[in-house]
Amino acid sequence: MRRTMPDPGTLEVFSPIRWQDGKLLLLEQTLLPAEERWLSCSRPEDVADAIRRLAVRGAPAIGVAAAFGLVLGVEPSQGGKDLASAFDATYELLLRTRPTAVNLRWALEQGRQVFAAHAASGAQAVREALLAWALAVHREDIEANQRMAAHGAELFAAGDRVLTHCNAGALATGGVGTAIGVIATAWRQGKVSHVWVDETRPLLQGARLTAWELDRLGVPFQVVTDSSVGALMSRNLVDRVVVGADRITANGDTANKIGTYTVAVLAARHGVPFYVAAPRSTIDLSLADGRSIPIEERSPEEVLTLKGVRLAPEGARALNFAFDVTPHELIAGIITEVGVAQAPYTETLRRQFEAG
Amino acid sequence: MRRTMPDPGTLEVFSPIRWQDGKLLLLEQTLLPAEERWLSCSRPEDVADAIRRLAVRGAPAIGVAAAFGLVLGVEPSQGGKDLASAFDATYELLLRTRPTAVNLRWALEQGRQVFAAHAASGAQAVREALLAWALAVHREDIEANQRMAAHGAELFAAGDRVLTHCNAGALATGGVGTAIGVIATAWRQGKVSHVWVDETRPLLQGARLTAWELDRLGVPFQVVTDSSVGALMSRNLVDRVVVGADRITANGDTANKIGTYTVAVLAARHGVPFYVAAPRSTIDLSLADGRSIPIEERSPEEVLTLKGVRLAPEGARALNFAFDVTPHELIAGIITEVGVAQAPYTETLRRQFEAG
Repeated sequence: MRRTMPDPGTLEVFSPIRWQDGKLLLLEQTLLPAEERWLSCSRPEDVADAIRRLAVRGAPAIGVAAAFGLVLGVEPSQGGKDLASAFDATYELLLRTRPTAVNLRWALEQGRQVFAAHAASGAQAVREALLAWALAVHREDIEANQRMAAHGAELFAAGDRVLTHCNAGALATGGVGTAIGVIATAWRQGKVSHVWVDETRPLLQGARLTAWELDRLGVPFQVVTDSSVGALMSRNLVDRVVVGADRITANGDTANKIGTYTVAVLAARHGVPFYVAAPRSTIDLSLADGRSIPIEERSPEEVLTLKGVRLAPEGARALNFAFDVTPHELIAGIITEVGVAQAPYTETLRRQFEAG
Repeated sequence: MRRTMPDPGTLEVFSPIRWQDGKLLLLEQTLLPAEERWLSCSRPEDVADAIRRLAVRGAPAIGVAAAFGLVLGVEPSQGGKDLASAFDATYELLLRTRPTAVNLRWALEQGRQVFAAHAASGAQAVREALLAWALAVHREDIEANQRMAAHGAELFAAGDRVLTHCNAGALATGGVGTAIGVIATAWRQGKVSHVWVDETRPLLQGARLTAWELDRLGVPFQVVTDSSVGALMSRNLVDRVVVGADRITANGDTANKIGTYTVAVLAARHGVPFYVAAPRSTIDLSLADGRSIPIEERSPEEVLTLKGVRLAPEGARALNFAFDVTPHELIAGIITEVGVAQAPYTETLRRQFEAG
C-alpha cells in the first residue's frame, strides 16, 4: 500500500482520480483509512453522487472529477439538439452537487466553452475534445500543486512545527496536494520537524485522510482534536499553519472546512503565521468578500452519528455548517502556483491572474 | 426516564451520586446516553477506578465521590495504627486519580480533618463522622448549585442564545449543575431561547451528557462540533457563553475541559460575554496563576478510536490534553454560590472566601 503514495518531489504522483477504459475511477474516500476501494463511474450521475457523498472531496479534486463527469455526459451517438440539452443537464447536475468550492463551477464553465467550440462537429468529436480537456485539467492541477509546494516551502524555517486542518493533500487534489504538498516539500527540505493534524470533525478528514497521507510519506505527525489547537499554541508548540481553501474572494477572504476560522483566530492571538495554499482555480474574483460565499449546510446526522454509532440522545438536533470563512486580515499569505500573495490581497490576487 | 431529571427550581434534584445501604452508587456516565446503569462501589478502589475511567466526572462530582470514597476506606473493625495508615492509603489512592480538578484535593483535605478529630474514638466512630461529613458535602454542593444558578441567571437578557462546552450539569456535580444550573434557571425565567451544545471531543460530554440533560429538562438546544463555534459567533448566533471549571487560580485563570480556551478567545473577538460557573471549592488561592495548574494528559486512544471503531490509520499517534487554561482577561465573570466575581479577580475571589 505504501507504494501508492510516491515521493512528492517527483511528477509521478498518486491521484484519487483516474481515467481508465472510458470510465472515471475514484478512490472511495469515505472508507479510508480502513479500506481502499475504487469506485467506477460510467455516468455523470455516478460522479455527482460521489461528489455529494464526499467519496471524492477537496475543492481541486471536485473540479477535476466534474471535468471527467462532463465527458461521461456525452453519448457518442447523440444528435445535435439532444447533444446540447444533454450537456446542459449534465452541467446542472454536477453544478448542484456542492455549493461552496468554486473550482467546480470553474471547471464546468471551461467545459462549456470546449463544448461550444466542438458541438458542430458531432458527439464523437465533442467527447474527444472534452476528454482531452479533462485530462489537461487534471495534468495542470498536478503541475500547479508542484509549483505551489515549491513556493510555499520557501516560507518555512528549520525545525518548524506545522499545523493543518482538514485534508488538503493528494486526496483533495489532482496532484501532491495544496497544504500537504507545501508541508511535505518543506519536510523533504529538512524544515519541518512535526505536523499537528486536526482531526476535523464531523467527518474526520484530518484523522482519516491527512494522517493516512502523512503516514505513507513518512512525515512525523500527531493527531489532535480540533479543540486542542488553543492549548498547543499557548504552549508554544506551533510555528506555522497551512490550510487549503474552497473559495477565495477578491479581497482574500477564504472559505475552507469548518473550524479553519477558529484556527486563524487562535494563530493571530499567538502570533503564528497562518497560510492558505490553493490553485488559482479556487480564487473567485467575482465576489468582493467572504460574506457572499454560499456556505453548505450538511445533514445533522454527520454530527449525531459516527459510522452507524449514535453519539447524542435520540431526538437531539444538530447544526452542521460544512465551511466557515476566514477574513483576509488573519491570513499571512496565499500560496498559489504563481507565488505567495500577501496583503493587500485585492491587488495581489488580481496580479496573480494577470501573471497568466 | 424523564422523571429522573426534575425541575431545576426545586431542591429535589437528580444526582449521579447516591449513598445507599453502606455503598456508593454512581451513574456509569461512559455508557450515556445509550444506557443508564448504576455502579455499586463498596471499596475505595471502586471509587478511584470510576473517577479514572470518567464513570463519574466533573470537578464538583469528583469531590463528592471522593468524600464517600474516604468513608468506604474505613473498616469498622480496624484498630488505631491500622486505621491511620488505611486512611492515608485511601487518601493517596483517591488523590492520584486525576490531577487537574482541585475539588478532589479540597474534599480529601476536609476529610483528613474529620478523620483527625475522630480517630481517637475508634473506627466505628470515624466511619460515622466521615459519612455524616460526606453527606453534608453532597448536600452543600446541591445548595451551592442552587445559589449559583440564581446569581448566574441574573446576568441573562430575554431571548439569549447561550453556548456551553463540555458538561457542567447535574451529571458533573452533586446538584443541578454549575453552568447548566445557571442556563436552565435562566431558561425557566424566560430568558434563554436556545442553547448551543459543543459536542466536546474526544469523549463527547456535550453531545452525550449535556444533550441528555437538556433534553430531559425540555430546554431547546442543538449540538454542534467544537469547531463550529467560530462560525456561530461570526453569524451573530451566540449572545453568551457559560462553562464550568476544574480549577480557578487566585487571579481568575481557569482550567476547564480542552477547547474552553478556544471558545473564550472567539468570544473575546466577537464581544460575547464569557462566564465561568463553579463553587468556591474549585478556587485554588494557593496558585497565583494558571501556569501552575497541572494539566492531565490522557490516553491517545481516546482520540484515535471511538466506541471501539478506529478513526485514524493503524500506527497513527495522538496528543490528548484533557484541559486547557483560559486566562482571566477573557472572563467576564465567575459565578459562585456567593455571587458573581468580576475583575480584578485577585481581589474579588479572595472576598468571596471571606464572605464565609
